[in-house]
Amino acid sequence: MESLTVGLGARSYAIHVGADLLTALPDWLKALQLPRRVMLVSNQVVAPLYLSTVECCLAAADFQVLSVILPDGEASKNAASLEQIYTSLIRSHCDRQTLLVALGGGVVGDITGFAAATYLRGVPFVQLPTSLLAQVDSSVGGKTAINHPLGKNLIGAFYQPRLVLIDVKTLQTLPARELSAGLAEVIKYGVIADANFFHWLELHSANLRRLEQEFLIEAVLRCCRIKAAVVAEDETEQGQRALLNYGHTFGHAIEQLCGYGQVLHGEAVAMGMLVAARIAERQQLCRMEDVQRIRELIAACGLPLQPPSLSLEACLEVMLRDKKVTAGRLRMVLNEGIGSAKLVEIADPGEVFAVALAPELLHG
Amino acid sequence: MESLTVGLGARSYAIHVGADLLTALPDWLKALQLPRRVMLVSNQVVAPLYLSTVECCLAAADFQVLSVILPDGEASKNAASLEQIYTSLIRSHCDRQTLLVALGGGVVGDITGFAAATYLRGVPFVQLPTSLLAQVDSSVGGKTAINHPLGKNLIGAFYQPRLVLIDVKTLQTLPARELSAGLAEVIKYGVIADANFFHWLELHSANLRRLEQEFLIEAVLRCCRIKAAVVAEDETEQGQRALLNYGHTFGHAIEQLCGYGQVLHGEAVAMGMLVAARIAERQQLCRMEDVQRIRELIAACGLPLQPPSLSLEACLEVMLRDKKVTAGRLRMVLNEGIGSAKLVEIADPGEVFAVALAPELLHG
Ligand SMILES: NC(=O)c1ccc[n+]([C@@H]2O[C@H](COP(=O)([O-])OP(=O)(O)OC[C@H]3O[C@@H](n4cnc5c(N)ncnc54)[C@H](O)[C@@H]3O)[C@@H](O)[C@H]2O)c1
Ligand SMILES: NC(=O)c1ccc[n+]([C@@H]2O[C@H](COP(=O)([O-])OP(=O)(O)OC[C@H]3O[C@@H](n4cnc5c(N)ncnc54)[C@H](O)[C@@H]3O)[C@@H](O)[C@H]2O)c1
Repeated sequence: MESLTVGLGARSYAIHVGADLLTALPDWLKALQLPRRVMLVSNQVVAPLYLSTVECCLAAADFQVLSVILPDGEASKNAASLEQIYTSLIRSHCDRQTLLVALGGGVVGDITGFAAATYLRGVPFVQLPTSLLAQVDSSVGGKTAINHPLGKNLIGAFYQPRLVLIDVKTLQTLPARELSAGLAEVIKYGVIADANFFHWLELHSANLRRLEQEFLIEAVLRCCRIKAAVVAEDETEQGQRALLNYGHTFGHAIEQLCGYGQVLHGEAVAMGMLVAARIAERQQLCRMEDVQRIRELIAACGLPLQPPSLSLEACLEVMLRDKKVTAGRLRMVLNEGIGSAKLVEIADPGEVFAVALAPELLHG
Repeated sequence: MESLTVGLGARSYAIHVGADLLTALPDWLKALQLPRRVMLVSNQVVAPLYLSTVECCLAAADFQVLSVILPDGEASKNAASLEQIYTSLIRSHCDRQTLLVALGGGVVGDITGFAAATYLRGVPFVQLPTSLLAQVDSSVGGKTAINHPLGKNLIGAFYQPRLVLIDVKTLQTLPARELSAGLAEVIKYGVIADANFFHWLELHSANLRRLEQEFLIEAVLRCCRIKAAVVAEDETEQGQRALLNYGHTFGHAIEQLCGYGQVLHGEAVAMGMLVAARIAERQQLCRMEDVQRIRELIAACGLPLQPPSLSLEACLEVMLRDKKVTAGRLRMVLNEGIGSAKLVEIADPGEVFAVALAPELLHG
């Protein structure tokens, strides 16, 4: 097992990464003196796989265990699921001495975190992420949210977990397509923050796709280190943290226009990264060779390169409506070479994206 | 105008108390460099009285002004009102550079604060409280909430405003019964924290009920000072802040059992304070003379002394279900003489409340 800390003063917390960590939960909760009453939140896909393991080890360690099982999928990241958690908590007379535990992917983690942030004005919560995306990204950093019928992640809070326990063994049951989607975020960290890690990924993407344990642990750990450092610098996304949105400006537009569920978040991010790299190359922030390496790593991870055919106008409209647009100007993250990135203001989004999306360029 | 600060480090903010302060809002917002885009939140009773004043002075100072008007009353402190605010914000493409401003009583303030805490994971907000209760209590300290069908204030967040601007002139239009309800919280501060203030209230309750401006400013200021000190010590109610719940344990039970709207919150608190004082006297924390003074001040403020006839069992059930019950034990705030209070664990709530509620005792 490897560990690191997200340094946020009184709100600091540990991330532990290893295999077979789920059953270590009771010991960690005791060490942190967290409440003995636990509400586990999972979903209909993950619960049959891992819920009883967690329930049993908690019960054996004298915790009082309750659970709530949400529907699966992004479509359920909404007010109805949140309400399901609230109602379970209230009906079980849970007071502030109750711990929420998220067992699942990013959807379960984001909803559970938001429920913890808002039930009785805040109860403690712990993340047990089971998808690669959740392990390298969403479980760390305290961004919690639900979707609104009018847009994704519009309702939420910054609210840190007390502990993140990452058991890479759970990835054995993750569908391959979801694993690849998670790898998109892994690549992202390499591109924006760590050229060595990017190179390591070029060498080991196949080991990761074969779910070799020591490689998974290494990759998750390096991603969490990068994310923890960024979050410690900028908890509420006033500056630096925005770099984590690399690939997301265009990615969100693809997701939204294709309808959530058609294109996975990570797949959209992969395509968005490639578009961002193309723009960076045009702006002389990186070389064509860097774009090529990014493209090849994305492909090696089993991710799509080519955005579905969408109208440029529709994409621009979505991007300009995005919450990361400040006072109407489109700002997006561009890579500088590989291993570094910055926020750039795009003066003429129409022209810039038209060029970046030209198919002949995308195919190199 | 008088001012004070709620000292919470980077989240500190000013409270200004005076007459005709509403129109000073644009200057304060500029001084604090708050966003130039403002969403005003009010309700159907307060908006016709004060909204245009605020809108006009903001517009004249080059702010972009939007507004949303909620239904009136405690019954509207719910998810539907919250949704009304979210939808207005989203439809107007509001980004994080948007300021929410609550113009109204505690209901509008609590909902608006919670909307600000959760829209895009947090946007700044300002309180313009217009009821006495909101001016002396709910607008200060960052407790925000909505009600859940299964209980009051169950969903919320600790989220501080950037500024509280208290215009006591708005109290001129407040119904007399609401003014008295606010006075209950005013009395509370005297009982739990400031014997001099309690005495001042004994001398000046009539001036307050006649809405004499300098007396209102003085009373609001003294209450805010006490609340600010408590909040600065204990922002998230881990200890000290619980003392502000004096009168609320039994008060909440009355409110809940009578149905919200029948008995006003302040009225319930008044009755709860008297019951608490009776229990304190029995426990030799105060003298019968103190109970008598509390009773007389409550009466002088036009507040009811006698709880409606409710079954003791029902009251106990509600109190033991309350979120301030930790691990099943009933803890409540009792006054020590007048001017001080502490949290006490009640070993035998059934007997203690039976004695405190005996009508002959309540009538002195
Ligand atoms: N909070 C943040 O900082 C942050 C960052 C990035 C993404 N997100 C959010 O995360 C969500 C995406 O997360 P995700 O990709 O994990 O989606 P997800 O939670 O929907 O998981 C993907 C699918 O895999 C299933 N699954 C998860 N773990 C499994 C396992 N071990 N075995 C078998 N199946 C498993 C899930 O049930 C689901 O069907 C989005 O809602 C996104 O907005 C949040
Ligand atoms: N956040 C906190 O710390 C805190 C503390 C105490 C109470 N509260 C909450 O505050 C709420 C009660 O507040 P309230 O008593 O202000 O109730 P309220 O907001 O319902 O106001 C009472 C009535 O007076 C009206 N009103 C307000 N200002 C007026 C004015 N100037 N002229 C004419 N009418 C006016 C309102 O429209 C309403 O009809 C409760 O929901 C309670 O839970 C919160």
